[in-house]
Amino acid sequence: MKVAILGVGLIGGSIGLAARTRVGAEVCGYDPDARVRSRALALGALDSEADDLASAVADAEVVFAAAPVGALAQTVKLALQAAPARCVVTDVGSTKRLLADAASDERFIGGHPLAGAETAGVENARADLFDGAAWYLTPAKGSTSGVLYERLYSLLRGFGARPVAIEAGAHDRLMAYVSHLPHVLANLLVTQTSGLLGEPSERMPMVGPSFRDATRVAGANTAIWTDIYMSNSDALVAGIDELLVRLQEVRGWLDSGDAQAIGEWNERARAAREALLGAGLTGGAEGELVRELRTSVPNRPGVIAEIALALGDCGVNILDLVLSPSQDNRQGTVALWVAADHLERASAAITGLGFPVVQA
Amino acid sequence: MKVAILGVGLIGGSIGLAARTRVGAEVCGYDPDARVRSRALALGALDSEADDLASAVADAEVVFAAAPVGALAQTVKLALQAAPARCVVTDVGSTKRLLADAASDERFIGGHPLAGAETAGVENARADLFDGAAWYLTPAKGSTSGVLYERLYSLLRGFGARPVAIEAGAHDRLMAYVSHLPHVLANLLVTQTSGLLGEPSERMPMVGPSFRDATRVAGANTAIWTDIYMSNSDALVAGIDELLVRLQEVRGWLDSGDAQAIGEWNERARAAREALLGAGLTGGAEGELVRELRTSVPNRPGVIAEIALALGDCGVNILDLVLSPSQDNRQGTVALWVAADHLERASAAITGLGFPVVQA
Repeated sequence: MKVAILGVGLIGGSIGLAARTRVGAEVCGYDPDARVRSRALALGALDSEADDLASAVADAEVVFAAAPVGALAQTVKLALQAAPARCVVTDVGSTKRLLADAASDERFIGGHPLAGAETAGVENARADLFDGAAWYLTPAKGSTSGVLYERLYSLLRGFGARPVAIEAGAHDRLMAYVSHLPHVLANLLVTQTSGLLGEPSERMPMVGPSFRDATRVAGANTAIWTDIYMSNSDALVAGIDELLVRLQEVRGWLDSGDAQAIGEWNERARAAREALLGAGLTGGAEGELVRELRTSVPNRPGVIAEIALALGDCGVNILDLVLSPSQDNRQGTVALWVAADHLERASAAITGLGFPVVQA
Repeated sequence: MKVAILGVGLIGGSIGLAARTRVGAEVCGYDPDARVRSRALALGALDSEADDLASAVADAEVVFAAAPVGALAQTVKLALQAAPARCVVTDVGSTKRLLADAASDERFIGGHPLAGAETAGVENARADLFDGAAWYLTPAKGSTSGVLYERLYSLLRGFGARPVAIEAGAHDRLMAYVSHLPHVLANLLVTQTSGLLGEPSERMPMVGPSFRDATRVAGANTAIWTDIYMSNSDALVAGIDELLVRLQEVRGWLDSGDAQAIGEWNERARAAREALLGAGLTGGAEGELVRELRTSVPNRPGVIAEIALALGDCGVNILDLVLSPSQDNRQGTVALWVAADHLERASAAITGLGFPVVQA
């Protein structure tokens, strides 16, 4: 497997290490900063470095665009121009709609590993950075190639990650709520609290764990996070608007002394947390029962994307996936492994798409 | 040392365990629920149980009111009525102004250990619950007895806690910002996110650590937290109002695409976080250099409170404190231990109150 990495910082470097040590891939890297390339080579994240983007991807089977969010759209565009016809191109950006232009190319699948935003630089790269981490993939219905989706999926599984298919817009809304908004609030909490305390050097706050937890990500890397906030600003603004309404509501109950409303609101939060935790803990946990199902699909672009997205939509995590084309290459058999308690739901979803399902 | 505990849940039970096993105190407990008393006795948190509040405190030297916030004011009032003349009465409530009535009694010192709000019940009580934890004390200038302050202070040190003096109003504002507001935001984040995902049982979100950290305290015990929110509602409303303004500001920058403003705002948050962390890490850390200073004060109520609050105001943590009355009982010598790099600041603050300082 020949892998090309465009941008060898923390994420790109970790992909290189994981690809070389865990999958035995041959990794070529390009970075606009030649010193970064040399460092990545010295650290064992690359087998070779390229002087330009086109050389790096020339004979690649998988390309990871791991440039900063601000440079990502251009990097992906150039990669698709230079990469071979049967090469899958993906990225690692934390928002996905800004790559919508690339989505019409059957070789492109947007990606986003949930790992490692707090530190930066290839010096911090690790082969185990993606162990057990969710890795969102945003294949496009009707265009993404099934063969290429399977290739990328298997590679990410080889890294130790858990790939999850999701529609690009849903991904960005989800990230606005579960990542970007918590970062905004962490920033606001530290700013507001430091203002309360006056001259911080002259005042020692001793605070409980809730504040430390809520503000651990405050003031994260400014270059990275300004790009992230701006690239997902509309979804984040929508999240802030919803929060403003909800905050006003709670403020009203506090101000009028409505203890009953506060208690009921807290109970709803408890239920929501349990539902989210429960949902987050299903699928993919170690030691769970895994079941296999098979389906037969026409060999046209976008079919695997359609199945992966349908299963993602109904909360089924695909634990593993193998695609076998038929002899005449017009049909394909897809074998899927899912958690045992997701089996019926997965079968129903695939049947709902019009494909026959056999539980193995 | 005879200790009485009124309300033997998680905090009261842990006080009992710490007092018995670490300080060798004799602990009598009262709880309106007789089964809870028996359980506390069986778990070794008490030497004896009392059938009513007055019997429990009758010959106590230190009384801890550890009832739920909603019953705290009444519990403290009854304790002060029944307790001996030379007994210190304190509480463990998370807001302090609601006990302002008690503050005119020289025997009362408000208290608030920063420990253990997430679980409840005497079954979870532990002798080491307060190890290294801040324990806020809100003595009243002009009334709190110095002898009683020292007794309580030493006892809490014996538990392994780090007592910090702070004015009651400042305490409540601080808690609104560093504890109650983060809890409100945690509740709102889980509620809002579960709404985004539709039917939670059918949708698996896989989220990064920032969301888990920011929402760990969501939906905390409703009975306890409704009391806490309501008892500090005005300070919390002020905190929410400030947050609403700041959120609107960030929303504006995002909406207008002002990346520079977002970047500068993130840098301010980074600076604020570093200042808060730096401040939080000074004083009281293991292995730091400790220096002693002594001062001579008139033996009148409130003097120790005045010194403790002045040192708290300028960020000095008192690591240890011993009060020695003179032969004629009209003067007293106070020996204080502070971190070496707080020595000059502490000396200046005490000199500023008009008391002579000797660095030992």
